Amino acid sequence: MTTVVVEVLGVNGGIGNTSYAKNSLPQQKAILKTKPITDQAITSLYTSSLNLKTISIADLGCSSGPNTFLTVSNLLKAVDRVRKKLRRDSPDFQIYLNDLPTNDFNSIFRSLPTHQEEFKREMGDGFGQCFFNGVPGSFYGRLFPADTLHFVHSSYSLQWLSQVPKGIEDNKANICMAPGSPPNVRKAFSAQFEIDFLTFLKCRSEELVKGGRMVLTILGRKNEKPSFLIIELLAMALNELVSEGLVAEEKLNSFNVPMYTPSLAEVKSLLEKDGSFTINSLEAFQVHWTGNESDVENISDKNNGGYNVARCMRAVTEPTLVSHFGEGIIEDVFPKYRKMIADYMSREKTEFTNVTVSLVKT
Amino acid sequence: MTTVVVEVLGVNGGIGNTSYAKNSLPQQKAILKTKPITDQAITSLYTSSLNLKTISIADLGCSSGPNTFLTVSNLLKAVDRVRKKLRRDSPDFQIYLNDLPTNDFNSIFRSLPTHQEEFKREMGDGFGQCFFNGVPGSFYGRLFPADTLHFVHSSYSLQWLSQVPKGIEDNKANICMAPGSPPNVRKAFSAQFEIDFLTFLKCRSEELVKGGRMVLTILGRKNEKPSFLIIELLAMALNELVSEGLVAEEKLNSFNVPMYTPSLAEVKSLLEKDGSFTINSLEAFQVHWTGNESDVENISDKNNGGYNVARCMRAVTEPTLVSHFGEGIIEDVFPKYRKMIADYMSREKTEFTNVTVSLVKT
Repeated sequence: MTTVVVEVLGVNGGIGNTSYAKNSLPQQKAILKTKPITDQAITSLYTSSLNLKTISIADLGCSSGPNTFLTVSNLLKAVDRVRKKLRRDSPDFQIYLNDLPTNDFNSIFRSLPTHQEEFKREMGDGFGQCFFNGVPGSFYGRLFPADTLHFVHSSYSLQWLSQVPKGIEDNKANICMAPGSPPNVRKAFSAQFEIDFLTFLKCRSEELVKGGRMVLTILGRKNEKPSFLIIELLAMALNELVSEGLVAEEKLNSFNVPMYTPSLAEVKSLLEKDGSFTINSLEAFQVHWTGNESDVENISDKNNGGYNVARCMRAVTEPTLVSHFGEGIIEDVFPKYRKMIADYMSREKTEFTNVTVSLVKT
Repeated sequence: MTTVVVEVLGVNGGIGNTSYAKNSLPQQKAILKTKPITDQAITSLYTSSLNLKTISIADLGCSSGPNTFLTVSNLLKAVDRVRKKLRRDSPDFQIYLNDLPTNDFNSIFRSLPTHQEEFKREMGDGFGQCFFNGVPGSFYGRLFPADTLHFVHSSYSLQWLSQVPKGIEDNKANICMAPGSPPNVRKAFSAQFEIDFLTFLKCRSEELVKGGRMVLTILGRKNEKPSFLIIELLAMALNELVSEGLVAEEKLNSFNVPMYTPSLAEVKSLLEKDGSFTINSLEAFQVHWTGNESDVENISDKNNGGYNVARCMRAVTEPTLVSHFGEGIIEDVFPKYRKMIADYMSREKTEFTNVTVSLVKT
């Protein structure tokens, strides 16, 4: 177990995400945009198994912050609306919030009483009991007993690989799968994603009951072109530090981010390869880097947008930048990174591609 | 939910235990002494239901520290010994660690990979999977869906009441149910324990499957005489501060510890009143205040024992002493308390009474 965790934490020079998702505004926007899909999935599960006394829901990569209870809250409300319409007693809910053991579960647990009161207030007296559990561990391994989950959700987490791929020493000035990466590097990244995603699907197919539902939103890419621009801009900032003599070239050469943004076609092909789920819907959509659509049009917001985007990326990347390059780099790299993000945002349409898939366990 | 938690935390002037048990040496000793009872209970559960694929175990009031994994580890080993003897595949284990939301679950979760590796190493390759969950909440309420638990354990936690009893204004210089407490105070404390313990039993009887097991160890008292000496010594230390003018008398008069140490007869009578469990065994035993039997004989250890006991009690009591009396009191009260404990230990046999009961859900 330790090994997996340490690898996810990126000892190989990857990004040290202490939790999978990062409670960013784009993630919040993505949860909002996929709400009709999650609502449909949970209500269809509920109406097709009305004698279910307790619905088990797992949110994988829950992080700790404003987005942590967002999906769970939407799911509870969706079931509650339907059971009221059908004039049935509410089921109870067993809710599992999962993330790496280094996630801040204490702050989730301390905010729990407030959320529970809010659910009760919003849903009224007939609302079922909600039993909350924290589940520490990597989702690239089993987290639950067989045949126990009814619903799995994961958002903005599966783009994190379990480790930096092996054999990518010649990725040099790049820090992820970039347009300039040699073919073997591209291959290594996509092979690692294949291993990880298939492991994830195998584990979840064992844990979900037959007919159970799963909705995944993954940061992806628009087409087959290997590119994850926001990380490439960080590479550019790091390369500037190299040319200024502030970072040794070899140090940058050995740094890579354990992240892979799959295309919709790739996700589809791996789901078919796994074969234990029926695809109910599979779609890609765009979310602006700031999480705010209007920013695309609003020039005056752009610099501030750049600031917010950089701040969010700093939360994601700082721990492993520090562990690979040392404390000293931080005050040099982030002003550059922020400027690059702001420049880019003022010139181009800057959007994350999200791949969302809604699945039924066969 | 908030209300319950706040009450457990003792806004009424009770002791602010941020977790139920406190990972003390006496608790460790008690877990060791009751090991034959827990071992018998879990193996009897296992052998009477051999087609069980996953055994669900809940430890209520797990705290965070060296004792947190002690009982779970003993239970896993007990099942593993039996299944090896019977030459059967290992079941999987769903383990729920419960305590108040303010407990330090982060440190439990961060130590989890080490414990999991240790279990694997000790039990060998055939050992089943262990799925760990943190469950934040008061056990004086439902924590799990109906009919889901096979085994419940709780040690050194049920002596904490859900709140300081109402109507004990005339407990004055006492801070718990002491020999000098008026009859109405004694009545109020035992009535609160009755409410809380019956609530606990009702919740657990709903959560446990038929035939499920429960082993509880509660700090109790030897006979019907109302006394919990170690807290009475704290009252004496606080009274000294009053006579020295360092604490206002009214301030002490309104301070009470939400703790009740039941007798064996009381526990038995409440179990019979509840009626949903068969009593497999019910016994009381003594553990020295230091957790170390030899300390009773060894004069030279006594002062040091006093130091350790006081340090342990400080961990238990400091938060609410501070919240009731203010920061300033701490450096005054604990040296006095320590001296009183050490004096008492040098004169008397200082032991905690433990009441342990092993139950089967009917």
